[in-house]
Parts: sequence; C-alpha cells; structure tokens
Amino acid sequence: MTKRVYRFGGKNAEGNGTMRNLLGGKGANLAEMCTLGIPVPAGFTITTDCCTEYFAMGGNYPDELNAEVMTAIHATEQIMGRKFGDEKDPLLVSCRSGARSSMPGMMETVLNIGLCSSTIPGLIAKTKNPRFVYDAYRRLIMMYSDVVMEKAEGIEPKDGEGIRVQLDKMLQQVKDKNHYASDTDLTEKDLKQLCEDFKIRVKKVLGKEFPDDAYSQLWGGIGAVFKSWNGKRAIAYRRIENIPDEWGTAVSVQSMVFGNMGDNSATGVAFSRNPATGENKFYGEWLINAQGEDVVAGIRTPNPLNEATKNNHNKHLKSLEKAMPAVYKELDTIQSNLEHHFNDMQDIEFTIQDGKLWMLQCRIGKRTGLAALNMAMDMLQEGLIDEKTAVLRVAPNQLDEILHPILNPDSEKDATVIAKGLPAGPGGAVGKLVFTAEGAVEAAARGEKVILVREETNPEDVEGMRAAEGLLTGRGGMTSHAALVARGWGKCCIVGCDAVTFENVEKSTMLKGKNPMKIVEKQLVINGKHYNEGDMFSLNGTKGFVYDTAINTMEASENQRFIDYMKMVDKYRKLGVRSNSDSPEDAKQALVLGAEGIGLFRIEHMFYGKNSEVPLAKLRKMIHSTTKEERVVALNELEPYIKSATKATMKVMNCKPVTFRLLDPPLHEFVPQTTEKQEDLAKELGISVAEIQKRGEALHEVNPMMGHRGVRLGISYPEISEMQFRAIFTATAELIQEGFDPKPEVMIPVTISVNELDFQKKLLDKAHDEVEAKFGLKINYLYGTMIEIPRAALLAEEMAKTAQFFSFGTNDLTQMTYGFSRDDIGSFMDDYLNNKIIPNDPFQTLDQSSVGLLIKLAVKGGRTTKPNLKIGICGEHGGDPASVKFCHQIGMNYVSCSPFRVPIARLAAAQAAIEEEMKK
Amino acid sequence: MTKRVYRFGGKNAEGNGTMRNLLGGKGANLAEMCTLGIPVPAGFTITTDCCTEYFAMGGNYPDELNAEVMTAIHATEQIMGRKFGDEKDPLLVSCRSGARSSMPGMMETVLNIGLCSSTIPGLIAKTKNPRFVYDAYRRLIMMYSDVVMEKAEGIEPKDGEGIRVQLDKMLQQVKDKNHYASDTDLTEKDLKQLCEDFKIRVKKVLGKEFPDDAYSQLWGGIGAVFKSWNGKRAIAYRRIENIPDEWGTAVSVQSMVFGNMGDNSATGVAFSRNPATGENKFYGEWLINAQGEDVVAGIRTPNPLNEATKNNHNKHLKSLEKAMPAVYKELDTIQSNLEHHFNDMQDIEFTIQDGKLWMLQCRIGKRTGLAALNMAMDMLQEGLIDEKTAVLRVAPNQLDEILHPILNPDSEKDATVIAKGLPAGPGGAVGKLVFTAEGAVEAAARGEKVILVREETNPEDVEGMRAAEGLLTGRGGMTSHAALVARGWGKCCIVGCDAVTFENVEKSTMLKGKNPMKIVEKQLVINGKHYNEGDMFSLNGTKGFVYDTAINTMEASENQRFIDYMKMVDKYRKLGVRSNSDSPEDAKQALVLGAEGIGLFRIEHMFYGKNSEVPLAKLRKMIHSTTKEERVVALNELEPYIKSATKATMKVMNCKPVTFRLLDPPLHEFVPQTTEKQEDLAKELGISVAEIQKRGEALHEVNPMMGHRGVRLGISYPEISEMQFRAIFTATAELIQEGFDPKPEVMIPVTISVNELDFQKKLLDKAHDEVEAKFGLKINYLYGTMIEIPRAALLAEEMAKTAQFFSFGTNDLTQMTYGFSRDDIGSFMDDYLNNKIIPNDPFQTLDQSSVGLLIKLAVKGGRTTKPNLKIGICGEHGGDPASVKFCHQIGMNYVSCSPFRVPIARLAAAQAAIEEEMKK
Repeated sequence: MTKRVYRFGGKNAEGNGTMRNLLGGKGANLAEMCTLGIPVPAGFTITTDCCTEYFAMGGNYPDELNAEVMTAIHATEQIMGRKFGDEKDPLLVSCRSGARSSMPGMMETVLNIGLCSSTIPGLIAKTKNPRFVYDAYRRLIMMYSDVVMEKAEGIEPKDGEGIRVQLDKMLQQVKDKNHYASDTDLTEKDLKQLCEDFKIRVKKVLGKEFPDDAYSQLWGGIGAVFKSWNGKRAIAYRRIENIPDEWGTAVSVQSMVFGNMGDNSATGVAFSRNPATGENKFYGEWLINAQGEDVVAGIRTPNPLNEATKNNHNKHLKSLEKAMPAVYKELDTIQSNLEHHFNDMQDIEFTIQDGKLWMLQCRIGKRTGLAALNMAMDMLQEGLIDEKTAVLRVAPNQLDEILHPILNPDSEKDATVIAKGLPAGPGGAVGKLVFTAEGAVEAAARGEKVILVREETNPEDVEGMRAAEGLLTGRGGMTSHAALVARGWGKCCIVGCDAVTFENVEKSTMLKGKNPMKIVEKQLVINGKHYNEGDMFSLNGTKGFVYDTAINTMEASENQRFIDYMKMVDKYRKLGVRSNSDSPEDAKQALVLGAEGIGLFRIEHMFYGKNSEVPLAKLRKMIHSTTKEERVVALNELEPYIKSATKATMKVMNCKPVTFRLLDPPLHEFVPQTTEKQEDLAKELGISVAEIQKRGEALHEVNPMMGHRGVRLGISYPEISEMQFRAIFTATAELIQEGFDPKPEVMIPVTISVNELDFQKKLLDKAHDEVEAKFGLKINYLYGTMIEIPRAALLAEEMAKTAQFFSFGTNDLTQMTYGFSRDDIGSFMDDYLNNKIIPNDPFQTLDQSSVGLLIKLAVKGGRTTKPNLKIGICGEHGGDPASVKFCHQIGMNYVSCSPFRVPIARLAAAQAAIEEEMKK
Repeated sequence: MTKRVYRFGGKNAEGNGTMRNLLGGKGANLAEMCTLGIPVPAGFTITTDCCTEYFAMGGNYPDELNAEVMTAIHATEQIMGRKFGDEKDPLLVSCRSGARSSMPGMMETVLNIGLCSSTIPGLIAKTKNPRFVYDAYRRLIMMYSDVVMEKAEGIEPKDGEGIRVQLDKMLQQVKDKNHYASDTDLTEKDLKQLCEDFKIRVKKVLGKEFPDDAYSQLWGGIGAVFKSWNGKRAIAYRRIENIPDEWGTAVSVQSMVFGNMGDNSATGVAFSRNPATGENKFYGEWLINAQGEDVVAGIRTPNPLNEATKNNHNKHLKSLEKAMPAVYKELDTIQSNLEHHFNDMQDIEFTIQDGKLWMLQCRIGKRTGLAALNMAMDMLQEGLIDEKTAVLRVAPNQLDEILHPILNPDSEKDATVIAKGLPAGPGGAVGKLVFTAEGAVEAAARGEKVILVREETNPEDVEGMRAAEGLLTGRGGMTSHAALVARGWGKCCIVGCDAVTFENVEKSTMLKGKNPMKIVEKQLVINGKHYNEGDMFSLNGTKGFVYDTAINTMEASENQRFIDYMKMVDKYRKLGVRSNSDSPEDAKQALVLGAEGIGLFRIEHMFYGKNSEVPLAKLRKMIHSTTKEERVVALNELEPYIKSATKATMKVMNCKPVTFRLLDPPLHEFVPQTTEKQEDLAKELGISVAEIQKRGEALHEVNPMMGHRGVRLGISYPEISEMQFRAIFTATAELIQEGFDPKPEVMIPVTISVNELDFQKKLLDKAHDEVEAKFGLKINYLYGTMIEIPRAALLAEEMAKTAQFFSFGTNDLTQMTYGFSRDDIGSFMDDYLNNKIIPNDPFQTLDQSSVGLLIKLAVKGGRTTKPNLKIGICGEHGGDPASVKFCHQIGMNYVSCSPFRVPIARLAAAQAAIEEEMKK
C-alpha cells in the first residue's frame, strides 16, 4: 500500500532529511529535526505524490487518505496532549506547503485551523486569554475565506472585490473608529465582534458559510495548499527557477504554537551565518508577542537576534540574547548543531510560546553570491567541507553578483544619501523609478533600467522584481520574502527603508477638445520631497544607501577570495574556457577573468561602435559594389583596418589562440539610410544617389537570416574572403617579426558543406603562401568552421575532412532547429512558455533534446573522421551553466562566452567534472 | 598491372558491352559489336579510370600508357592492313569521347589524325583522290587547331578571335571569290592552298606550328578529349542531367573510314524504331559523299533511309534503300540483330566507304516520352521484354511529355501555318520569340514563356534550350544534336525549318538629350515577313507546324496506351500516391490521374485566385483583429467559407482520405496595400485607416519564414484553430447526412513539439464532440502533423505519441536544414551550383544526405512509438522520381504531389519496388 502520510514529533519521525522529493524540503527537515531531538511541534506530512494523485484525480483525494490522516491526527494529539476539535482542550494546526525546492511565499498557508464555535470556549478556558483566542479566530477567518474559499474553491466574490480586501477594510474601520494605531490595540470585544461581522460578510460575499467544524477546516486547508501549487504566482516562479511542474507540493499539518500569547512569547527567523555577506555570525530577527507571519511579511520592523549583529537600523531594539537569554542560548546551540549536521548554512524559523522554544522549520539558507563564496571558503578552512564541496557550493550564476557593478565610490562620496534602509542585496543599481511590477516588466522590455520602489513587495511582484535593476521597499526586514527572493537572484536590494512613502496627487489634464480632467498620479515621497515615475535613483545595496541622482557604476574590484576560489575551481576543471571578444579591450578583460583564448572574434565588430566611421564607409563601399573591380578597390581600402584590428587583439592574447570568424554581417543593415551618407557613398563609388538607393534595395532579403550571408558571400565573391585571409596572416607575420607568438585560428561561418571549406581553403592557401613568401617566415594557423546550420551538423563527418576544428554556433543552430527567428519570436514566445509548449526559452538554455542531439551527432561525426578534432561552442549558450555542463559531458574541448561569463563557465565546467566523478 | 587500353576490331575485342563504366558507352558498344561479328573499324579504347588518373596527375599521362597505346596501335594496323604514320599506306584515326552516360555533342572529337606532310603523298597515291586527301587535311587542321591547340592546350589566340572562326572565314573567302555555293565545289587546288594558308595562320595566331607528325597529333587528340570532360559545355550538361563529375570520359581511338570518298560513299545515323513516336519502323537519315559530322551538325538536310519513313520534307530525296539496296539490306539486318541483342531500340551511326558498310557506333536510343511508352508496350506485346522491364523502360519524368499540353486543334484549324519543319519534339508550345540562349534564360527567370529560334542550335545553347517552352531551328535533321537534346527533355521542338532566316535591321533611336544613334536589331524573317523578339509564336511539335499567333493549348487527351501502361505500373507499386489539391476541380483532375487521396489540402488556398474576394476580406479582418472578440467575429464570418471549401473537396474524393492542413498563410502578404482595400477593411472593423495601417505594420516580420505562422497562430489564438476544426467536422457531418463517406485527416503545420499537438488536440476534441452532438452522428478522422522543422524530425518519437500520421513538408525542412530561404537563394544558388558546392538545387531533388537523414531519423522515431504510424510526404519532392524512390526505400506509406505529377510518382514508385526486388 502506498504510504501517503508521514508523522513527526516527540523526538522521532517516520521520515527523515533525505526524503525531500516525497515530503518536500519542509516536511523532510521537520522529520530530521525531530530525530535530532530538537523540539518541533508534532504533526504529519502528506506526500508530494499524493499532490500529483490529487491533480490526476481532478482535485479529489484518494480514498485511503482519510484514514491515514485520522491516524496521524490521533498520534499528534497524543504527543501534544490536546485533541483536535475538542471542546475542552482543542489542538489547533497549520497547513503549510513544501516542495522539493524552496519556493518562498509562492504557495498558500492556513494557520489556526480547528477554531470554531465548539472549540473556542475550551481554548479560552485553557489559555485564560480570550483576546488571544478571538485574535486567532479573526486571523483564521481572514486567511481561510481568502485562501480556501475564494482562491482554492474558486468562489467569485459577489461584488468583484476580493474577500481579503473587504475584511482588511472592516478591520481598518474598527481601528479608525477607535483611533487605534496598531492591531495590538484591538480589544477582546472588538475582536469578538469582528469575528461575527466577518462571518456575516463571508456568507454575503461568497454565498457560503464559513465552516464551523474543525475537520472541514482541515480538509479545506489541505486542498488549498495542494491547489496553490498551480496558482499563478507559483507557476511564474517555477518558470523563472526552472522547477518542473510535475514535482507537486507536500502539505505539512503541524500543531500550532503561538508567539502571540503575551510578552513571554515571540517568534523569529534566523540564519546560522549572515546570508548577505557570509560572515560566520548567528544572524536573525525576532518579534515579541507576534505570529511568524508578522516577521516574514515585513509589517513590523523586527528586533535583532543578538548583540553582535545589531546594525544602524535596529541597534535601539532589544535583542533576543538580552530579552530571553536562556531561550537564546538553546536556540544558538540548536542552530550550531543543525549547521554541523547539514554541513551548510541553515535558515530557521522558531516560535517561543510562554517561554518554551519550538522549531518550526530549518532549511539550507539562500545566500548572495558573495556570501556563497565566503561561506564556501570559510567552511573549507573550518574543515566543515572539502574542496570539491566548496566548488559545488557556489551556483555558477551567483558569480555574476560578485562581478556585479557597484556604485563608483568617488562619485558616491559626492552624492547625498536621501534615505537609508537594510542592505538586503549587494551591488549598485541605477535606473528610473517605477512603482509597479507591471511597470518594471514593461520598462525592461523597452530596454530601460529601472528601480522598483514598493511599500512592501509581495509575491505577486516576482516578475517585476526580476525585471528591475534594483529594489527598494519601505517595510520588511532582512528575512522578508522580498529580501529573500531578491537575494536569490543577486539583485541589488534595499528593504525596510522607513522614509519611503507614497502619495496620490491629483492633477488636471487637458485632453484635446475635451474639458479638463482630473487624474490621480502616484508619487514617491521621501522626507517631504516628491518623485515621479521616471526620475533617476541610485541604490547602494551593500550599504543600504538611497540616492535621488544617477551615480556612475564601476566593476567590482579584484577580490582575493574570488581569485583563490577560482584557482581552486580550475584544479577540477577539464573543459577549456575562452571568451567571445572583438577588441583588445575586451581581450584584456577576458584575460583578467581567466579566458584561455578567444573562441570568437567577429570581424564585423569593427563596423559598430567607436572608431567605426572610416572602416564602415569602406564596408558600405564594398557592399554596394556591383563589379569585381569596384569590390576589389573597396576591399583593398578595407584590408588595413582588418589587419590592425586582428593584430591588436592577437597581440593582447600573445601565445593564446584567437579564433577569427570571417565577416558575417547582415548586409542590409549597412545600407546607408540618410541622404548625407548616401551622397558620401555615391561620391566614393562615382555613381548617382539613385543608383546607390537601387543597389541598397537589391540587398533587401525576405528572410535575411537564411539569405546571402557568411561563407555564401565568400563563394559568390571570393575576393572578400581572400582579403580577410591576407589581413589575418599579415597581422600574424608582423607580430612574429615583432617577437610575439600569435596563434590565429580561421573560422568559416554559416557552412553547409565541406565543399565550401575546400573552396575557401584554396583562397586561404594562396593568401597564406603569399604572406609567408613576402615576410620570409613560417605562419602556423588552424582552419575550422562554425557548425550553425543543421546540415553542417548532420554532415559533420564530411566537414571534418577539411576542418581542423568545429565551433558550434548555437544561436543560429537553435534558430534553424526550431524554425524560430530571434527577431520575431516576441509575438509568440510568451504564449509558448505560458502554455508550457516548451520548457525554456531555447536561446537562453540550450535545448539538449533537439539542438543538443544535433550537436552530439556532429561531435560523433567529426571525431569519426578526426579522433582528436578540436570542438568548442561560441554561441551565447557558452556562458549558460547548464549548457556548459552539457558541453563537458559530450566531450567538447572548450566553451567560449562573453568575458563576464568566463568565471561562470569555469565554475560550471569544474562542477560538471566533479559531478561526473561522483557519479562513477 | 592496371589495364588502361582495350583493343577492338576484326570480329573480336578485349572489352564488351557490360563495361560501360570503364570504356564509356561508346567503347563498350564498339567492343560488343565486334564480338557480334559486325563490321567495325578497328581501334582501341583508353579507360575512364585513366581519365581520372590524368586529371589527378595534373593533366599528365601515366608512364605506362605509351607502351599500351603503341601495342594497341600495332594491333589495329594489323587488322586494317595499314600503318599509322606510314608514308606509303597511312592509317588515319579518330579520337572520340565516351562517358558512361551519353552526352551528345558535349565533348570533343578529332578526326583524320595521322595526316601530315610525310603521309599525304602516300594517301593520295593509294586513294587516287587528291581532292579528298586535301579536304581531309583541311578538316584536320581546322578541328585540331581549335580543339587541341586553342581549347585543350589553352593557347590564347593573339588577336582575340578564335582560330576556328578565322579559318572558317578564310574558307568562306575562297568560296566567295570563286562564287562557290557549297564546300563540295572547292577544287583540289583550292584545298591544297587552303591547307598551306591555314598552317601559316595557325602559327601566326597561336604562335605554334601545326604538328606535322602523326603521333604528336594522336597524343594531342587523346589529351583534348580527356580535357573536354571538364569543358564548360560538358559541366553545364552534367549539371542538368545529374551526371557525377568523377566519372570521367574514355577515349576511343578508331581507324578512320570515309563516307566522303565519292558517290559510292555515304554516312548516316539511324534508329531501330522511330524515336519520336515509337513506331516500329527502321528510321534514319543519310548523306551521300559526306563525313558523319555533316549529318549530325545539321548543315545539309539529309536523305531518308528508306521508302517507308519518307516524310513531306524529304520525300523528294533518294532513300538509301533505293540508292544502295545491298548495303541497306545489310544495315537493316544489323540493326535488327542489335535490337534483339540489346532488347531495346538502337541509335546507330554508320559509314559507307567505297560501297563497304562500317558501323561506327550503337547505343540505346534516346526517345520521347510518347515513344518510350509505345516502344515499351510494343516490345511487351512482341515478347521482346517482360512487364517489369516495360515498367522500367519509361523514365518517370517522360510521362510529363505524354501529359504535356498540345495546341488546341480547334484553334489551330483557324490559324495559318506560316512555315513547316521537322517534328523533332512533340506537344505544343506558345511563347514570345527570343533569338539567343541567354535571352531565353533571362526570360524564363522572369517567368515568361518563350520560343527559342535559332538558325541552328549548338551545344553552347543547352541552358537556353532548357529554359524555353519550345525550340525552332532553320537547319538540321531529326538526328541533329539539337533535336536529340530537345527530345531528351521532352521539349516541343521543330528543326530544319528552311523558311527561318535572320536579318540585321538598322534602326535610329533617340537617347534623351543625345544625337540620334543607329542600333542594329536582329529580326526573324519568314517568307518575307519580319518578326521581333517578343512577338508571339506557337509551335506544333508533333506536326512541325509554325504559327505567328498565340494559339490556346489544351491537355493531352486520354491515351488508352497510357491508361493500360499505368494499370500495369500499379501492379508493381507498393507506395501510395496522393495529390496536393486545394479545390474540387484539382481533386477531380487528381482522381483522373490516379490519386488515391489528397495528401495536402491547404486551407489558405481559398484566399487566392478566383472567387476569393469575399473570404479574403474576412481573412484580412481576422488578421487585423487585435482582441479576441474582434477575431471571433471575423472567424465566425469566415467559417462557412471554409466549411464549403472542405466539403466540396471531400465530396469529390468520396471514400478517399483528404488531409486538411490548418491555415499557414504568410500573414503579411494579406495586409491590404491599396487605399481602397484599407478603407473597406477599416469600415468592416470600425476603426480608422491609420489604425489599419498600424496593425498591418505590426504584422511585419524580419524573417517571416521563421516567424508567427502555422500552429504558432493556433497557440496564440486558439480560436483560429477551433473555427477550422469546427468547419471541417461540420462539412464531414453534412456529407455523412447526405450519404457520402468522407475521410478527413486533420494536419497541424509548423510543429516543433508534441505539446503543440496536445494543445491543439484539446481544441479539436471540443469541436469534434460539439459537432457530433449537434448532428447526432459519429465522425471518424485522423489527427496528424507536418514534419517540416528539424526539431519535429529530431523529436519524432515524442511527436508520434499524439500524431496518428506524419507528413513530411520537405520544402520547409530543406529551408531549415540548409538555412536557405527559397525567396532569397537567387543571389547565390548559381554560384553554389557552378562551383559544385552542392550537386543539385535541394528544392528540386531531395538531399538524401541531410534532409533525408532527418527524415530517416523521424521515420525511425515515429515508428518506435507507433509501429504502424502512417507516414507520407507532401513537399514538392513528392513528385520528383528520385525522391519518390527514396520515400519507397525508407518505408513511407505514401507520397503526395501536384495532380500532374501523380502518374510520375506512380511510375517511380513501381520502379523503386521492382528495383528493390531485383537487388534481393
């Protein structure tokens, strides 16, 4: 019989920490903590498999579940000494979600389950705290009516406005009427009345009674957690984090303990080390007389856990260490034991009920890239972990954060800090203000850098948070969901910046031909100064400083820890890492970041950006030539520029290989559009402007991506290739004469046949021999091809007869394999991702099932002809960790990626090698 | 030791008829004739392998060749009783080419080798015919200086004009000076002088003496034949005929016999049956006192071979049957023996020297499609061949000719025949006049139909002949190269139309702002009437009639022989054949031609052509909708049209499957361009014209071929698919109610993932259930997908989980596999073919190496999931014989092609099955 329910509590459990897949992270760790003898409120976990069953059965529970749950409830009652639904001493429980992988705040929770008219009197009698009981009851009604009734059961609120908003308003009205500043001012009478009014409103709005029965509430809660797996937020989060939809969530039903039973009660969240910096200090926040949600939701600014980690924002608040020394000591011991038990930094939740400590959760803590790096190096030094584990401890993409730009300290010195907040995510961010997640998504789509400012971020905002350069919130602590999520992404983030407020300002506006209209505009107000969306702000996420000006950013300076770590990483790495660089500046940067060569130097790069004016004019002349004679004139003028560009980069890369890809420019993009440029070109070519326009139009193609490009130009106009070969070899010869050791590799793009390679090779041989003769020296080189068209991959065995190396151009290969034009996917990519037609954007993560299959076929084919054929990748996937691991697995020699992704590729490659070894 | 030279002559030979690959067709058949005891002038053949060696050695002969040739020459001398280079009784030889596959006139020949100052007196003494000897000598000088010295040795003529042209002019001058009408009027003295003058001119123009030594001439001739394999003409012909470049040519060195030694000598060309009609009558042409080249070159209109085959054009000329009855009888016996020996129609060349018959060549004769059909059926009835052989005897593409249009007899009756010529290629052709091969190529590229008119066509014209609808020449007989080549392609062709002459007419023209200029224009003159390029002509190639008006054409009427033949073909065929048809008219046509279903009904077809106005307006409305509401309105209006269209075709195809491909229109093509249409559309949608334009622009894509098309529309806008499913099922239901048996198959285009199929299937199921419920009946259907994007092919195993059938869209699959946009290949395809980067245009012949590999992977993958998965092809390759054979070989269920190619596909499929059986 399938076991669907696993009990825990009373220092033992049916599950354990290895059962994440079945019990979810939360359930598995609750079980593990129990077996470690740590005080955990008893309860049970319903498996993720049961969640899958639930969906497969169209939202119904399997028949056997009821009996299992009843057995588990009774066991829980025995351990806790109270009975669920009992009139005298009722047990209350919570229903919480827990997936294999943490998805903070993305799914639903229901607390205080078991409170109903029959159990309330008993609980009041037992706790002698009617105010607490009615407060718990009103929380249950608010949460349950929203999460279970409206969201999970799908009841449409009658007048459109959600039940939660309506109940919140009712609560606010009572506070306003009585001039209460805080929820804690509400009296027993207020709360009792509110509960009655809430139930009437629920009935009215949702057309259904609030369930007045403990077990009805329990099953409602379980179902709501299951259903929240397929809620909009959860799906959006899974898409960003690449979490499979099939995993499902477990439900942990756990006895309630209360941090809000008076001043001897409290609740808190803590990390065994600092998650932002990695500093080895027990770090956390707590609130007296509060429920856990109060800390996490960021409604009140929390107290520091201990004296050692107080900061400017909370130094005036009492630490747990001072307030409840014994409890703090117990907690400190537990966190230390947990860290040693799991060999990693722990993120824990606890509640103190009437002076007794209860652990509600422990899990591996999320951390910034910097923290990950520091913890890995510290733990290695502490002997907690070995080198390989240290290498595996930093997610490759996290290096991005370490290498992230920061505000230029010199510029920052001159700027005025207009507000301070908690430094939740390090680095610097500069951008235009936006006040909504949607606004951030839209601006990012337009290519604008924005700072998202919110009173508090909530889980609905994830996509906007993702899109923004930096985040600024008015409320919440370092462990609020907002901070957690931002940190997970290495986003510059400042939270709990009290100065942040918003005002709605009325403005008059004139619409053409209409009467003036009043519109309401939201403005950010900081210390009385008003800011509109679009104003420039800068954030220093490392210090928590906010500026209302744009400050220069600069690259993170050299970090010795990072250098040491990467040195260790390289010990385990087998795959080479090169960079895609098209200039000496890029090449220098790449060398600093550890590139072992250049895998892609695009000759056409010199026609973009600074100093491109003159060569661009020559290129235009070449493109607009209609006879070989005209073209040769233009090519001869272009040659010195190409020679200089290739020479300068080979010089920087001295002794290291540089792969030159022959010109593959989108010709039509170089057609001059302005009359002035057209006139210049006409003069150069000695023809009319009309003729220039005519020749420009002739370059138009219906599908330029599959048109006259790459090697196809060199077949139609061999002189174009010839010139480039001559330029590269001349640059090489000059460097040799100057005492350098250049290592050119010549790469032919957009090939489909070995015949193209043979055709071009003849031209290359000629240029090579000419230059050798002219300089009287020997020029070594490699001759290879991009594999970026499916036919080349399919016929790799042939291609390798002439090619000395392959370099996969996975951008184009993905375009052709999918029939997706990168320029045009905007109109349907979202539909494809939202409908789960494809799991990822294949231009971001290499699709191993199709593009990867072609690559495997090509590697096999190429190595059949030349067993030692050098094989690399130079598409954008070369810097994507999952794709790098794939490249390692199929035996490539190197990946090549943009300079800033070189460390990421190095780490991913080392991890791939270690993981491979571990599998053996 | 490799044997490079194979002797023949004197009723035996070292080679035989099976050695075509090594000895070429000509060499193998000469050997075979010898062993059959047929009189063949002795000689030897140098192998094709030696030709390959020659090129591999950079145009040098292998060392061993000389000794082998000397041995063979001596053996030849012994048989012929004369000695090569002998002063008293010299043997003369010819050097001729011979590839595996006949390439008429595409390579070089040198005749009369061995004539030099030392051998001329002996030959004069022996023949007592000094005029003949000097005529042979001047022919040798003309041919050798052109073919060997200028072309093969690559000597540039000093003043630019080719040596052959110069010598021709010199000859003409002598004729003009003496008022000679014909070459035969030249006297011994004229010729002797001409030979001296020729040699001086050769020295002057080519800077080198004409070789005065028999062996020098022989080796020059051998090398020239080898080199002509890589001549421009030969390469162009191989490209059209798909002959591999690696085959090489053999060289046959054969003793000369002379048809021009007086009135007891003659030369001729003949076919054992009529190559144009297939009629079983010995058929041919001959010339008295002439060399073979005179017949083939079409300079003189030749005599008929016998009385039975005289026609209007040669009935006044004497037949060989009457002129030399004994020789004719011997020839008739030989041709009959040869046909029975080879079991196929023979094309033979013969020479009569002083009353003795010599056979110079025999080969399988080229024939028109009609002749191939008739011969196959006749020979089957005669018991000469069996059914399978008869099926293999007609090349699938030849059926095209049989089904070719003819001039509408009713219209033709009313038109006046302005000239008559020899009916060299049957069928009718109508088009604009062009006078140059280049003009024909250019016009065809513009999509214009043209009639190429030439005094005589020559091998340089092949590409223009290919491009023209029909050919008309003023000179040449039925066996001239022009007629042979045209017939090989089933081209409508009239040759030897004496009325055809050309005149250069001077005209004045005014160029803007310049003085009047004289330009010379070539005009066609027929019986005094002048015609310009661009004038409309019509040809009846079956009768040889020329018209100077455009006459309607009509399809070839039903041919009982064809019907019987196809019935036999179908007995051996295993592959199904369907048609790509988009209307009831097309469907009817397809049924007549033997289609077993429709493999591709493109729903968007109804938006093109006649009666498309109203649905097109609805489609435009749909495309320009920006909200689902707008779109649904337009779709509802469109639905009845799609229902009617699908219903009408299923009705015609009653009981046979019809595969409907969902809408895959190039959206941007349907954006209205005229203001009027934009206004109409604006009114329909209730928006401004500016908004229409804006929405139209939004549909622009950079690479539409890889853009928002096919199923991608149905993912973004499910309502578009839904409507189509509903329309198809409603049409099906109505037909069932009306007593028909419709078999709809629904096909999803441009898929890359099984998830797309699942997504669409849900919509289909809904529509299907709704229609079934509405009509209260059961609707059967198949659900499948195009495989036209590489990813779909690579993931076929997945695709087949939902698809019930695959249909390969090889047009798109080729585009993506090659990265070639069909719309844009014009700018480089010629460069790719000319430089032999790719062997064929992959859009015409399926590239088995890459696209074929993807197809094989997909077939394997699909059948892994569903062993009985139905698989077909519906790209244009479905009608290409080689591709059809490939489809048979890899186990497809059917091919689908345009109606007129259905018989071709049926025949190709049958041949594939027979060939497969023969291989077993």
